[in-house]
Amino acid sequence: MSRLITLTTDFGLSDPFVGIMKGVILSIAPKATLIDLTHHIEPHNIQQGALVLSSAIPYFPKKTIHLAVVDPGVGSSRHPIVVETSDAIFVGPDNGLLSSAFSNKAISYQLTLPEYFRKSPSKTFHGRDVFAPVAAHIATGVWPSRMGKKLKDPIVLDLPRPEQNKTSLCGQVIYADHFGNLTTNISEEDLKRCLPGKPLTLKVGRRILKQISHSYADCSKGKAGFLLNSWSAIEIFVRDGNAQQQLNIKPGTPVTLQSS
Amino acid sequence: MSRLITLTTDFGLSDPFVGIMKGVILSIAPKATLIDLTHHIEPHNIQQGALVLSSAIPYFPKKTIHLAVVDPGVGSSRHPIVVETSDAIFVGPDNGLLSSAFSNKAISYQLTLPEYFRKSPSKTFHGRDVFAPVAAHIATGVWPSRMGKKLKDPIVLDLPRPEQNKTSLCGQVIYADHFGNLTTNISEEDLKRCLPGKPLTLKVGRRILKQISHSYADCSKGKAGFLLNSWSAIEIFVRDGNAQQQLNIKPGTPVTLQSS
Amino acid sequence: MSRLITLTTDFGLSDPFVGIMKGVILSIAPKATLIDLTHHIEPHNIQQGALVLSSAIPYFPKKTIHLAVVDPGVGSSRHPIVVETSDAIFVGPDNGLLSSAFSNKAISYQLTLPEYFRKSPSKTFHGRDVFAPVAAHIATGVWPSRMGKKLKDPIVLDLPRPEQNKTSLCGQVIYADHFGNLTTNISEEDLKRCLPGKPLTLKVGRRILKQISHSYADCSKGKAGFLLNSWSAIEIFVRDGNAQQQLNIKPGTPVTLQSS
Repeated sequence: MSRLITLTTDFGLSDPFVGIMKGVILSIAPKATLIDLTHHIEPHNIQQGALVLSSAIPYFPKKTIHLAVVDPGVGSSRHPIVVETSDAIFVGPDNGLLSSAFSNKAISYQLTLPEYFRKSPSKTFHGRDVFAPVAAHIATGVWPSRMGKKLKDPIVLDLPRPEQNKTSLCGQVIYADHFGNLTTNISEEDLKRCLPGKPLTLKVGRRILKQISHSYADCSKGKAGFLLNSWSAIEIFVRDGNAQQQLNIKPGTPVTLQSS
Repeated sequence: MSRLITLTTDFGLSDPFVGIMKGVILSIAPKATLIDLTHHIEPHNIQQGALVLSSAIPYFPKKTIHLAVVDPGVGSSRHPIVVETSDAIFVGPDNGLLSSAFSNKAISYQLTLPEYFRKSPSKTFHGRDVFAPVAAHIATGVWPSRMGKKLKDPIVLDLPRPEQNKTSLCGQVIYADHFGNLTTNISEEDLKRCLPGKPLTLKVGRRILKQISHSYADCSKGKAGFLLNSWSAIEIFVRDGNAQQQLNIKPGTPVTLQSS
Repeated sequence: MSRLITLTTDFGLSDPFVGIMKGVILSIAPKATLIDLTHHIEPHNIQQGALVLSSAIPYFPKKTIHLAVVDPGVGSSRHPIVVETSDAIFVGPDNGLLSSAFSNKAISYQLTLPEYFRKSPSKTFHGRDVFAPVAAHIATGVWPSRMGKKLKDPIVLDLPRPEQNKTSLCGQVIYADHFGNLTTNISEEDLKRCLPGKPLTLKVGRRILKQISHSYADCSKGKAGFLLNSWSAIEIFVRDGNAQQQLNIKPGTPVTLQSS
């Protein structure tokens, strides 16, 4: 079983919460390797957490344990779960955060056995008292299937998909990164299926961007452009600038891609 | 001896200071495991550092080495110290930061032997030149008692305690976390001792909050409430919101808890 | 070969980019130890990245692999390179970021062999697709000299040097840290060579600071002073305060140091 555990939360890094989770993990699994994906998911933004997690999974070794906590319903009746796929193991709340794990062959278990939790778990910090110890026990070799009963219908987020018209794809911005680059929900696959091999124009707000770039360096400084980014999705950028700020666009803004 | 070292500082993560401390540690103790508690203690806020450190200790394995640097007096006559308790080892400045370590059985040593420091230590960065190498040497097996002479009266912070009246406890907000949740200095123990088994009302500013919640989910969305949090202290929160911002409360604000 | 890899980028910590790079590294070199220097270099600020990296190198074990990505020209014709010195190995773009590595005995190689990259590298994220796998392969024992052809003229930044007049040194602020302390480009060496053993006065803006301090504690609270800092450079500070904010000074501001 892998000893590599990634952590994704909306806890931020100002408080000792993430460090405390790591202390709990290393108390149980001293040889685990811990990698932070990010702890700066917007507080309670489950969809953003699901997106970030999904983008990172392909780059980790098989059987990596992904521990994710964006959990506004902590202490309520929402279940703690573990999900096993052919690629990886996921531990977190059953609130849609682990959506990307639910492929055909995923098996989900509702975590019901308190022997894998800290004693007397709090009702406000399951990251520390439930999810961290469960991930740690898995890292030491406990099988997910031994940790609870099968769950048939885990919650899956209904992520917005682009709409296809005759000569266009209508999607939206779904993520703004640290550089202000804006990722849309239009994927390379969508493009190949709907607008194969055509010259493209992108409309966002009142702005029309002509011709897809291959790299940021294709545009001249300060100009806006669009390209297929490292997540294989259409991304809007400003060369050596910040598209989010300069174009005043944020997640949710509609985007139309059409053959020009 | 443990090879697990935690780091707590007010250095932030924008500069290479924390990375440099880790380079110094791994140069001496290549097999040490390094865990960040937080580096976002407010600059020079010793009390906040002491509080954060104290909250995290119970979740780490026995004999973990806790390296803490919030050190406005660096280069002055304040002593560098190491403190040994039955649970853990602490390395940092003698300015109150390590207060939570000073239980009955704690033994403190003033670090006096330059052989455990970097050569010609600077007067401005003891984290790099004194505390990191000392923690690393301890991780390799050097006994704290060999590193200096016993110190009888280390500085202990005088943390504010709640006052008990006939039917109430008067305390204050002592910490605001990333979610805007507000921890007070009224503990579960205070509650059990002074207001056992009674229905409770909390007053903060002009606001009166009725009935303690068991989890955030007990409150309706956007409403303020209070509960016993994961540190076993009374905490004020806004469900799916930010209490610090929405109630405009910050550390230092008085809080009264009374039987209703 | 070392298994210690440091990471320095302008990626920030909000996105999963840094975690993804670490996933790529650990997929190739599962035993590598990963240390973050900082990921908060200002977006695209190559000079700041070069400065931060240079300040940290002396504190890491010999043969540490320093992976650095501040890379506005990603996807353009700028080369990916690896640089070997007697002290360390550097991996990053050929844009000046690795300037501090280029001492007499440094050997640079242009990374040309796709077998050390991820398959079909993107044009927007060489940190993930080129630099991370190259650093990982080096950590597993591949010699830099096997990874590409020698590069004769890597790009070296032209960092501003202080000017010497009869009784003064004219330099500038080059870095503001998290505490607001302001590092200048006047080094201890400059001082010893040009103004040896003399009482000093520092001019910055309209302000005149008299007498060099030995530590922050030498100044009274709230007062501005200057000293030789932990990088052996002249630094302007405010005792228990924030010089950048209180003196309204930023990188680029001229500073004159003269015998008083």
